[in-house]
Amino acid sequence: MNKPTIKDVAKEANVSIATVSRIINNGVGYSAKTKDLVMQTVQKMGYSPNAIARGLINKQSNTIGVLMPELSGLVSAEILHGIEKAAHSQGQSVIVCNTASVGGQTLDYLKLLQEKQVDGVLFTSQFLTHEYADFIKKMGVPVITISAYSEDRATPAVRVDDETAAYDAVKYLLQQGHSEIGMISGSPGDRLAGAPRIEGYKKALHDEGIPFDKTKVVWRNGFYFEDGREACSQLLNEHPTITALFAASDELAVGAMTSAAEQGIQVPDQLSIIGYDGTKLSAMVLPPLTTVSQNFIEMGETAATLLLDSIQTGVTSKGATIQHQIIERKSVRKL
Amino acid sequence: MNKPTIKDVAKEANVSIATVSRIINNGVGYSAKTKDLVMQTVQKMGYSPNAIARGLINKQSNTIGVLMPELSGLVSAEILHGIEKAAHSQGQSVIVCNTASVGGQTLDYLKLLQEKQVDGVLFTSQFLTHEYADFIKKMGVPVITISAYSEDRATPAVRVDDETAAYDAVKYLLQQGHSEIGMISGSPGDRLAGAPRIEGYKKALHDEGIPFDKTKVVWRNGFYFEDGREACSQLLNEHPTITALFAASDELAVGAMTSAAEQGIQVPDQLSIIGYDGTKLSAMVLPPLTTVSQNFIEMGETAATLLLDSIQTGVTSKGATIQHQIIERKSVRKL
Repeated sequence: MNKPTIKDVAKEANVSIATVSRIINNGVGYSAKTKDLVMQTVQKMGYSPNAIARGLINKQSNTIGVLMPELSGLVSAEILHGIEKAAHSQGQSVIVCNTASVGGQTLDYLKLLQEKQVDGVLFTSQFLTHEYADFIKKMGVPVITISAYSEDRATPAVRVDDETAAYDAVKYLLQQGHSEIGMISGSPGDRLAGAPRIEGYKKALHDEGIPFDKTKVVWRNGFYFEDGREACSQLLNEHPTITALFAASDELAVGAMTSAAEQGIQVPDQLSIIGYDGTKLSAMVLPPLTTVSQNFIEMGETAATLLLDSIQTGVTSKGATIQHQIIERKSVRKL
Repeated sequence: MNKPTIKDVAKEANVSIATVSRIINNGVGYSAKTKDLVMQTVQKMGYSPNAIARGLINKQSNTIGVLMPELSGLVSAEILHGIEKAAHSQGQSVIVCNTASVGGQTLDYLKLLQEKQVDGVLFTSQFLTHEYADFIKKMGVPVITISAYSEDRATPAVRVDDETAAYDAVKYLLQQGHSEIGMISGSPGDRLAGAPRIEGYKKALHDEGIPFDKTKVVWRNGFYFEDGREACSQLLNEHPTITALFAASDELAVGAMTSAAEQGIQVPDQLSIIGYDGTKLSAMVLPPLTTVSQNFIEMGETAATLLLDSIQTGVTSKGATIQHQIIERKSVRKL
């Protein structure tokens, strides 16, 4: 868990601490050969040179790094709000790197966080590959994923149980008397927000003895408004008899509301819609959206608290499951 | 514009560079008195000790810092998207500090950005006080404000002309045949988003020969959904004859739509609403909101590009005015 120190580098390279210090400070008094050896050792050990200066203030930077793609403006904003609430209450600063505005830069940002000497990393709403996990391990700081999926499954995670939450959403529609239920989703290839939610939909129908009809799950690549508008239009076109719809995000649900309006279909009188996320968008639309809340603020707060615990104790966190919750508003009617 | 170097500190303190280096690296071989002197000089000059290690890689950190309060989830997200688009196209990283989740921490975050050695600062949606401006000056890096207001007025700014944009919004309502026009707003004490937009509303009415009735401007402290819902309710209660409403943010407008629906008032048939911001929320509601777009993505992109120019050339930017634009959708009807 500990970051390599200048002492470790000196020992490994078999030179004095002063030599390492001079080399990384571009001082004088060493051979080119020694310099190469020290710089290679620095790189090999993942030693971050700025660490020297850190001792000045205290041993930690009191900063945590957050990696966050623009999954959806509101989801990110709410998770971040929770993270900052917890961090600031402990006097910690937060630096945020938005990884998805241009593709493939997650590793660049991990390097940046290493250079900026964060004490820990929160990895949000993104697939944590072995490559990323290995890099973070080399950084020597704890990591917790938030609403994410990690390749090695060993990384501590804070998230809702997506399959169960989706199951509960569909069960809610069933309890309101619906049986012709469609679903709109982002990509089933998305291991966090795609596949498990479709699985939950399937199981809820199955437990009610309703056979699964895969044409009733219409998906697009994203979880955004336009995706929902298109997917709902296709679903209503192919299955005009459905009376209720489970959308795998609030934005998809709101897109579906627009699609329904465009076809002169009243929500909830002719079509009931339940969303997923519980972002503030869900409360702002007309009719206000019934949705499964992921409690993103609590999620961010919990993850940051566990990370700070890990930083202080050196003990790897076990992660946490956040309780989801159905917020009943006005977009679902009882049949 | 240049940051102080270790040389500058050594010269100022009248000691050798090696002494400064040893002191800030917690080395040995100096008196307590010398240490005090050097540390005082470091502080006085705003020298950031990590700068030593930076020389290792290159002279710049290739990182810009963004200070951003949670003005509104979507506004921040869109400005940030523009900033990152510009920064990444030039191989620069962005670290974001969210300043408003807990009050009064702007200065703490400026110190953090100094410690993290950003090459420049984008100061977003917040009042830049003399204190902040002085601190940034001491950091020796360029700053540009985005959609913000600065006390000294000398700081380069990238923003729309709020008064003119508000004027155009109200003029648009007048052109659609409305003359009984109310306004809902955040605090008039807000020098960026409050006062200038109210001023624009006044002027547009004045130019049409319509006397200003201050009771037709209802405001709350914030620019959020609930503020709009409350303000609209009060406005319609006190002025049931108004046919159109200018809301000083999209969230206020969407709150007004909910308030209207609660009172059984049809938008736009009985009440026309024009919003302000042009965030993606405006396209997601029913009816889709006619609004004045601030082109936040372009705003962020322009500001980041100007900041990077400044970093490279050392020349202070002149800032830029972003063109606003009325997006016609379906929430305003022609009388």
